[in-house]
Amino acid sequence: MKSPELRESVYQANMELDRRKLVIYSWGNVSAFDREAGVIAIKPSGVAYKDLHPDKMVLLNIDGNVLEGDLNPSSDTQTHLELYRNFKTIGAVCHTHSVHAVMWAQACQEIPCFGTTHADFYYGPIPVTDPMRTEEIKSEYERNTGKVIVRRFMKGHIDPEQMPAVLVAGHGPFTWGSTAAKAVEAMVVLEEVAQMAMGTLQIHTGQEPISQALLDKHYLRKHGKTAYYGQR
Amino acid sequence: MKSPELRESVYQANMELDRRKLVIYSWGNVSAFDREAGVIAIKPSGVAYKDLHPDKMVLLNIDGNVLEGDLNPSSDTQTHLELYRNFKTIGAVCHTHSVHAVMWAQACQEIPCFGTTHADFYYGPIPVTDPMRTEEIKSEYERNTGKVIVRRFMKGHIDPEQMPAVLVAGHGPFTWGSTAAKAVEAMVVLEEVAQMAMGTLQIHTGQEPISQALLDKHYLRKHGKTAYYGQR
Amino acid sequence: MKSPELRESVYQANMELDRRKLVIYSWGNVSAFDREAGVIAIKPSGVAYKDLHPDKMVLLNIDGNVLEGDLNPSSDTQTHLELYRNFKTIGAVCHTHSVHAVMWAQACQEIPCFGTTHADFYYGPIPVTDPMRTEEIKSEYERNTGKVIVRRFMKGHIDPEQMPAVLVAGHGPFTWGSTAAKAVEAMVVLEEVAQMAMGTLQIHTGQEPISQALLDKHYLRKHGKTAYYGQR
Amino acid sequence: MKSPELRESVYQANMELDRRKLVIYSWGNVSAFDREAGVIAIKPSGVAYKDLHPDKMVLLNIDGNVLEGDLNPSSDTQTHLELYRNFKTIGAVCHTHSVHAVMWAQACQEIPCFGTTHADFYYGPIPVTDPMRTEEIKSEYERNTGKVIVRRFMKGHIDPEQMPAVLVAGHGPFTWGSTAAKAVEAMVVLEEVAQMAMGTLQIHTGQEPISQALLDKHYLRKHGKTAYYGQR
Repeated sequence: MKSPELRESVYQANMELDRRKLVIYSWGNVSAFDREAGVIAIKPSGVAYKDLHPDKMVLLNIDGNVLEGDLNPSSDTQTHLELYRNFKTIGAVCHTHSVHAVMWAQACQEIPCFGTTHADFYYGPIPVTDPMRTEEIKSEYERNTGKVIVRRFMKGHIDPEQMPAVLVAGHGPFTWGSTAAKAVEAMVVLEEVAQMAMGTLQIHTGQEPISQALLDKHYLRKHGKTAYYGQR
Repeated sequence: MKSPELRESVYQANMELDRRKLVIYSWGNVSAFDREAGVIAIKPSGVAYKDLHPDKMVLLNIDGNVLEGDLNPSSDTQTHLELYRNFKTIGAVCHTHSVHAVMWAQACQEIPCFGTTHADFYYGPIPVTDPMRTEEIKSEYERNTGKVIVRRFMKGHIDPEQMPAVLVAGHGPFTWGSTAAKAVEAMVVLEEVAQMAMGTLQIHTGQEPISQALLDKHYLRKHGKTAYYGQR
Repeated sequence: MKSPELRESVYQANMELDRRKLVIYSWGNVSAFDREAGVIAIKPSGVAYKDLHPDKMVLLNIDGNVLEGDLNPSSDTQTHLELYRNFKTIGAVCHTHSVHAVMWAQACQEIPCFGTTHADFYYGPIPVTDPMRTEEIKSEYERNTGKVIVRRFMKGHIDPEQMPAVLVAGHGPFTWGSTAAKAVEAMVVLEEVAQMAMGTLQIHTGQEPISQALLDKHYLRKHGKTAYYGQR
Repeated sequence: MKSPELRESVYQANMELDRRKLVIYSWGNVSAFDREAGVIAIKPSGVAYKDLHPDKMVLLNIDGNVLEGDLNPSSDTQTHLELYRNFKTIGAVCHTHSVHAVMWAQACQEIPCFGTTHADFYYGPIPVTDPMRTEEIKSEYERNTGKVIVRRFMKGHIDPEQMPAVLVAGHGPFTWGSTAAKAVEAMVVLEEVAQMAMGTLQIHTGQEPISQALLDKHYLRKHGKTAYYGQR
């Protein structure tokens, strides 16, 4: 992908967050990583969605050095970079403060897989990180946010391709995907699933997750070699 | 009904799901069955609502063989067919992942009839199926989804004309009606009723359903020979 | 008020229900009563909002006889008439199935006055009727709905001018006012207050109502001889 | 700031409340104080948002005497003035009945700081006042509302610059800031945070606030000398 296309895809994905009402003000960011070219495009920090333009996307390398752009990159840049360094196959990262996903993150609870809406996209419960420790907060906070996410996936033997989302405890959701558009789609689905799971527990405290068989069926109907959903 | 009209009615009904905000992305589908002609029109699989067009509706016979159309029919097609085969008088089927109805489906709870909004359209509680068994999931899953619905209605001696909706446990709602528009109307009402019932229990845990007399009054005010609602 | 003005005001008030998202389909109705002329204008039964027009409003006298109009009046007409006969000073009635007010009606609970939003408009808790008895349902149901409301106000010594709203148990809200616009405003406020009261109890079960002094202050700031809110 | 600019900023801020759906009818008001000129501009009382215009803003001095304008100032004017007199650095005040903030105010509970969305803007829990006493309500009610707020901040040693919001028990939120736009932004954030906090407790009753370290990190990332968020 050439840089103009990378910028454009990241711009469009950021605007989609606004259209889907997953953000207010400048509370969210999307980046994408062209691994061949070694170029990351990311939203500038604290710029309102209505003022964004493809040319305002900041281009960085994997070490966070600015390649092109006059604006500061998103304050969450170091979290994005840490995810790109550790989740080797992902091509884009998205972060928001979408309301229902934040509720679960603030409650420090993973989102159980209560139904096929969830299983169609995510293979299992949406994990939540441990609360960050004081020393992780005080120094290199944004980078450590990425480390805490990676640690959670390592400890749980979770495959980031099958689980393109996480809740950072006391903070909110990060999602990812092969492209900027896919990372945003993961965020849209996460917000929907977070809302549904809340209501499920309100109707029936102690509801159990769906069976492994149903999870396998729905996830594999849409993902992997045996998928048969959609136009192929 | 000629095929162009059937396609058009199914197209319009699918678009109405989008307008009523009962679906995001391509998460929903409507079909209609012209029993005389033996032709079913259904939404193609995984196509976004903005890209739909009457010509993209897929035409099938009751065995699921494609009569016209280049696209794959909805992945839920076998569920629709099973309902048409068993509920002899219905002319259309609708499926969504609408938020509040899914909450009840995920909680594996029927929706009690707490008020006249519900009774105006549905004659009794909205039934929920049993969770599907592993063997039903592993093979012929979509067809078995239909079978599980039919089994629930048989066991409960429920008349699908008086109860044009069901919640599939751990999944979501299916509704039906004489026409595609009616099946969608049933979905709209179901979502409204699902939301109201949740709130009712939040205000008063253990609330009892309305009396049989009130259920009879409201349902029969709008349905059957003695109906007197509307312009007749 | 001349009949054309009465029709127009009732038409506009019905359309306002739609604009304020208090109704879907044809689920709501407003009437107004010109007591001098002895003429009531009311929405026709089961007509969608988009198809309404001032000329389609039905004109009746207080006995429910149609004076002008080809359409059937609202199926709730007899409830409106009963309210006009008993609440001598009201000039308009409104009925909807607005979501949060219905939740309270279905829970058979009055809405406590938890704050000044409520007290600015309603002088005390929003009353809920007794559930209707089988014999009241089976015969003259709509008229008996009105009688049950009136009985609740008589028993509670409630002044319908200070409390222009009621929840019919297992059904939903009715509101009223001096004009059709005022009756709709009462419905808008009721829905807002119903939602706020639900959330209040979710945060703090067992929350007490505000003090009599605060209720008096806010209600009387906007109503009666000593009012000082707005432009006078 | 000249008077026309002050009027315009207050007008725009009031309209923003409407656009953000934080108010219905005329339920909200914003004022701004030009401390150098000694001039306060405030929304007139009980005027609908669609009828507002910069010229309709009322100009007052700090004693509440009208300098320019034919309309009555907001009925909450004395509350605004009391805040300006005591919180010496603030330049604008905003009041609404936004739904989720009112729920907390009616529940007489402070909003705990459960996450970084909250910590990015507010340094600690959103305080709630004591319920007002009968004598405070009966005489000089609006001014006493301001006094009760100020007393809460004094007692809690709360800095109004770090905590530009309060919940008045049984009433609703007031926010403030250096400009009218900032005071409205504080209200938007408060409503979002109030909704998130409710959901957090629904998922996990007894959830603890975030750590002091995380609160410090997020608040100070955006505020004060060491801030590094945005374009500087």
